[in-house]
Amino acid sequence: MQRIVVLAGGIGGARFLRGLKSAVPDAEITVIGNTGDDIHLFGLKVCPDLDTVMYTLGGGIHEEQGWGRAGESFAVKEELAAYGVGPEWFGLGDRDFATHIVRTQMLGAGYPLSAVTEALCDRWQPGVRLLPMSDDRVETHVLIDDPDGGEGARKAVHFQEYWVRMRASADAHAIVPVGAEQAKPAPGVLEAIAAADVILFPPSNPVVSIGTILGVPGIREAVADATAPVVGLSPIVGGAPVRGMADKVLAAVGVDSTADAVARHYGPGLLDGWLVDTVDAAAVGGVEDAGIRCRAVPLMMTDVEATAAMAREALALAEEVRR
Amino acid sequence: MQRIVVLAGGIGGARFLRGLKSAVPDAEITVIGNTGDDIHLFGLKVCPDLDTVMYTLGGGIHEEQGWGRAGESFAVKEELAAYGVGPEWFGLGDRDFATHIVRTQMLGAGYPLSAVTEALCDRWQPGVRLLPMSDDRVETHVLIDDPDGGEGARKAVHFQEYWVRMRASADAHAIVPVGAEQAKPAPGVLEAIAAADVILFPPSNPVVSIGTILGVPGIREAVADATAPVVGLSPIVGGAPVRGMADKVLAAVGVDSTADAVARHYGPGLLDGWLVDTVDAAAVGGVEDAGIRCRAVPLMMTDVEATAAMAREALALAEEVRR
Repeated sequence: MQRIVVLAGGIGGARFLRGLKSAVPDAEITVIGNTGDDIHLFGLKVCPDLDTVMYTLGGGIHEEQGWGRAGESFAVKEELAAYGVGPEWFGLGDRDFATHIVRTQMLGAGYPLSAVTEALCDRWQPGVRLLPMSDDRVETHVLIDDPDGGEGARKAVHFQEYWVRMRASADAHAIVPVGAEQAKPAPGVLEAIAAADVILFPPSNPVVSIGTILGVPGIREAVADATAPVVGLSPIVGGAPVRGMADKVLAAVGVDSTADAVARHYGPGLLDGWLVDTVDAAAVGGVEDAGIRCRAVPLMMTDVEATAAMAREALALAEEVRR
Repeated sequence: MQRIVVLAGGIGGARFLRGLKSAVPDAEITVIGNTGDDIHLFGLKVCPDLDTVMYTLGGGIHEEQGWGRAGESFAVKEELAAYGVGPEWFGLGDRDFATHIVRTQMLGAGYPLSAVTEALCDRWQPGVRLLPMSDDRVETHVLIDDPDGGEGARKAVHFQEYWVRMRASADAHAIVPVGAEQAKPAPGVLEAIAAADVILFPPSNPVVSIGTILGVPGIREAVADATAPVVGLSPIVGGAPVRGMADKVLAAVGVDSTADAVARHYGPGLLDGWLVDTVDAAAVGGVEDAGIRCRAVPLMMTDVEATAAMAREALALAEEVRR
């Protein structure tokens, strides 16, 4: 049985995984999920990326939105607002709240996040093994100008505040994964990477999703040292992110929003193969010159079948570059 | 302005308070609420009696039910059940959940329950000052037979489990207010009792509501020593509780379920006056022989006006017995 490890952020990662499962239903897929965008809201621990993967693969996702639950209601949120308790900019529905209540209760009882995630997945049966990148708290902060702080003043805001409340409207000067240096990979993460037949980077955010996962000490090294080929799919198509505001955070780390710049950002020490969209076919030569095998194929996840085709291309490229 | 202190349990206390407010809209009413039936559910702190008073006086109560919120939905509870997380026998609705989420978050941030209750009441504007009996944790347990434990074995269950899940179907051998001995009255409780013009015991449960409040060290003594007259209203009418299962817990403390037995249980050291229902007029003489002034008046809280009439009778009796 083919063992595939996927480093995944939220919506992009989750949708890619659905295609991958469709392409290779018998594969044993381990997902290493980003937890850098986790946030404490109303005293509850919210793990947006893990939940997006779990709900998407488990059949509970709000399809159009890409995050949150289908058939959602918002009574709790309305009541919290009536109490004057915010933030109101983070859209937690009633069904979603239950997930965070269960998670928070289990964490309070002493279970690590990896065990909690496994328990939540017992219900959702996502068909993959979903591991948080770490059981330790890592919180992505974004450094932006502080308009109230005088000339040149800057302040750090939680990634969710930057992404959801501000819609990434301010320039990001730096991305700071608070706690990353002290974090350890969650149980099973390094073992899964070492035992993988293929490692995939889906078209997730290269900075605040995959970059954060790779920033947990030991994970980047494990991926680089793995015997498995490592193949990524560009989240940048035609010079802009397919969805989201990845260009904003790429700028913060000095990377152009192009399919080839992202490949070079990961680097040939990490990536063996890279898929760009057909509109970026001109970028193939530059990526290959950098030592990364590259193919141009359709990369729009318009439906499960198109996404499955992308996954098959990624797996084919992995076979081609297998060391 | 007349200062009235009321020791209150849940539904009976809350409905009486609505009548009292109607009878004397200008009075300054301080409610000392029972917290012995508080329970932690799903990692959240639930205070059923405080919330019933707050929702009833604030216009948010489910009228027919007497507890919980009007217009309630149950998405969170359904989801928790889908996760296999119980208990399912405690009916927490989505709107109610928001209250417990706010409370738990504030307690986690270090605020005492009294400050949290004040913050919640900022929204509900109950028109009374609502104080928990104590900021310390007191948890009423009920000692019952343990059918799995062999001959004569007994076990303690949380009051809510006994009351809500078991519907008080087992005999209660003892009522144990765990933590009561170490509890201190919440800030303002003793001061309110000392400054009161009248102290009232509404027709709440004499054992697990008013009895638990009086069991916080210092409160019984403060009531007994107060200059204000203390008048109670019988929760027992015609030999049975008007609502609830007070007979079960009265038996545990060796008190008959009669209007006069309950008066003698409180005792003349505490009570100056006692109201029984007109159907219990024959009990008046016995109560007065015990040293407690007694009147028989209608005691069914059928609507706000009938309840206001009861409150007026209680205040009139207080004037009559004023020392």
